[in-house]
Amino acid sequence: MDAKERALLAHEEWGGKIEVVARCPVENREDLSIAYTPGVAEPCLKIKDDPSLSYKYTRRHNLVAVITDGTAVLGLGDIGPEAGMPVMEGKCALFKAFADVDAFPLCVKSKDVDEIVRTIQLISGSFGGVNLEDIAAPRCFEIERRLKEVCDIPIFHDDQHGTAVCCAAAMINACRLTGRDLKDIKLVVNGCGAAAIAVTKFLMFLGVQNVIMCERFGIVCEGDERLNPAQAEMAKITNRDHMTGTLADAVKGADVFFGLSAPGVLTAEMVSTMAKDPMVFAMANPVPEIWPDEAKKGGAAVVGTGRSDYPNQINNVLAFPGIFRGALDVRASDINEEMKMAAAYAIAHVITDEELSADNIMPLAFDARVTGAVAKAVADAAVRTGVARV
Amino acid sequence: MDAKERALLAHEEWGGKIEVVARCPVENREDLSIAYTPGVAEPCLKIKDDPSLSYKYTRRHNLVAVITDGTAVLGLGDIGPEAGMPVMEGKCALFKAFADVDAFPLCVKSKDVDEIVRTIQLISGSFGGVNLEDIAAPRCFEIERRLKEVCDIPIFHDDQHGTAVCCAAAMINACRLTGRDLKDIKLVVNGCGAAAIAVTKFLMFLGVQNVIMCERFGIVCEGDERLNPAQAEMAKITNRDHMTGTLADAVKGADVFFGLSAPGVLTAEMVSTMAKDPMVFAMANPVPEIWPDEAKKGGAAVVGTGRSDYPNQINNVLAFPGIFRGALDVRASDINEEMKMAAAYAIAHVITDEELSADNIMPLAFDARVTGAVAKAVADAAVRTGVARV
Repeated sequence: MDAKERALLAHEEWGGKIEVVARCPVENREDLSIAYTPGVAEPCLKIKDDPSLSYKYTRRHNLVAVITDGTAVLGLGDIGPEAGMPVMEGKCALFKAFADVDAFPLCVKSKDVDEIVRTIQLISGSFGGVNLEDIAAPRCFEIERRLKEVCDIPIFHDDQHGTAVCCAAAMINACRLTGRDLKDIKLVVNGCGAAAIAVTKFLMFLGVQNVIMCERFGIVCEGDERLNPAQAEMAKITNRDHMTGTLADAVKGADVFFGLSAPGVLTAEMVSTMAKDPMVFAMANPVPEIWPDEAKKGGAAVVGTGRSDYPNQINNVLAFPGIFRGALDVRASDINEEMKMAAAYAIAHVITDEELSADNIMPLAFDARVTGAVAKAVADAAVRTGVARV
Repeated sequence: MDAKERALLAHEEWGGKIEVVARCPVENREDLSIAYTPGVAEPCLKIKDDPSLSYKYTRRHNLVAVITDGTAVLGLGDIGPEAGMPVMEGKCALFKAFADVDAFPLCVKSKDVDEIVRTIQLISGSFGGVNLEDIAAPRCFEIERRLKEVCDIPIFHDDQHGTAVCCAAAMINACRLTGRDLKDIKLVVNGCGAAAIAVTKFLMFLGVQNVIMCERFGIVCEGDERLNPAQAEMAKITNRDHMTGTLADAVKGADVFFGLSAPGVLTAEMVSTMAKDPMVFAMANPVPEIWPDEAKKGGAAVVGTGRSDYPNQINNVLAFPGIFRGALDVRASDINEEMKMAAAYAIAHVITDEELSADNIMPLAFDARVTGAVAKAVADAAVRTGVARV
């Protein structure tokens, strides 16, 4: 039986990767009279008078919705809402296993931004946070932006921000290892989709100043009519020298290559034109922009990918469980840039100075230190920035 | 500590009455590669090609949403969506305990019928059924009707239909005990809200022909301008003699009184004017339309209430767990009248001829025979009526 058949069979045997269980005893009349009528009237009345008590008397304080519209699932694209659910259930299982967060999977059967926003807004009172997942760009930007405006709970599109936090952690440690400062590096980001834009924006928030983004057609430059609105916005804050040309032109002299794009687009020869001891992060999955061995042939000092079978895996599971754990712990109303920054540094600094090496800039997915460190840093940042509510 | 304080403290200690847990192992890389990427792509692609496979590869086959807008919670009225959640969580705990159904509580922050319908429709692909709960009349009628039109999963407003099924079971056994036939009885229903209307319609579906409904202002009669649209519709099919007057006038000579109304509105004297060996069902809770002792003083042969501390408790927990269990077991697209009828007779016939007595017409809430009997009857009826999909 091959891996695909094994996965199918496992899913069939599990009959769903999540389950809803009761936390209260329901064994006799007395139990019923407390958990249900008439006893249940008391917490209801308390919450009626003060809706914030829903965090005390219901599961809301630990509950995150994992929501998709099924339009950008894994690398599979627009496969439909129901077909996205195995991924959502898997994500929920990870939330529980890594951070004891109760996460519940939902798919929304619409591609209309207004409808998706309104649907999530209307059910948001049932949850302590919302993890958006696998929603196609550019819809995902507007959905998240508008939900953040109308909801008083954290809204977090993991494909953007979870990825950004993990990429930033890798970058922080790669700089730490090679003695660079984020402010001074020259960064090339290949790809200009939702994740690439989120990574770029976040790295700039962390201090990176010199950035060039590339799309399939080449360097992203202000004024190019081929850019969509989100890309055009990035063109205004990156590539301030208005450089044009190919990816090969862009990487010349660059300190860092970040690929969130397509398999095999970077060659060892292109790496050899980068600055001394360059860092290469090739996130296309399962086939990266360049294989680690090739990148090293070209002179790369540090290489990271999305794969678990090579060193320096950049895996969102390092970020989202701890980020939501921290946000829920202080009943945060938002997950803001400072909280994400705290998460990135927390992930990076799980690796001690002694442990840090070219092949060990990222904690392993199952490193038990990560979630707690991220949760604490995020909660502290929430308190510091005034979005904590306990 | 009194009962109210005990209930509050218990809710605080539970920190929520439901919890979402993982059904798949998530302990190492190999686990991740099956439950999450890359393995999860396989069930996704299967569901993409055939969305009905979502019942095979995700938890949908066992998953019911328990949804409220918080407008008619218990006897507390319109207390708001968040404040209704302790009841929804309690209901979910009952679903799990009584029928191993995974039920997830959701509140919708809107009182607009269009919005509520659209929201539930858009998330319906995540579930195998929807239990509507504590939604005020007349909104509840239209919401349910429209959802049944647009969704391909069962939509069931328990306050209406669960109550109707249980009331019918009580009536079936009271008739069995007193040797009456449903077709011949004269029925008075006091109250003309959502539950009363649902009970009346369902008893008429089961064969009751002679019905008078009463509202606060007296007998419900066709042409009365005080009737709301739902009541006016009932006035067209009940009280065919166009009788007017008070509840006291209505009950004279009646075989059955069904109260879904207000405390203390029926007196022993009124019961004494009913037909020989009358049946009295006083469902107002916690204080019934008449206390059982008073009803018996007036000559009642059988008395039922909603209370667990008197014989013949009419409790929805006898119905909804088994109804949804049966519907899910055959992947029903609907819960139709025949399935509800099957449930009512199944509940009634859990009581054997030997067990049947004036003080034992209804199974106890924790009678282990009930859910299985109801589930089987409902599943069989679904198959018989062509709404089963396995």
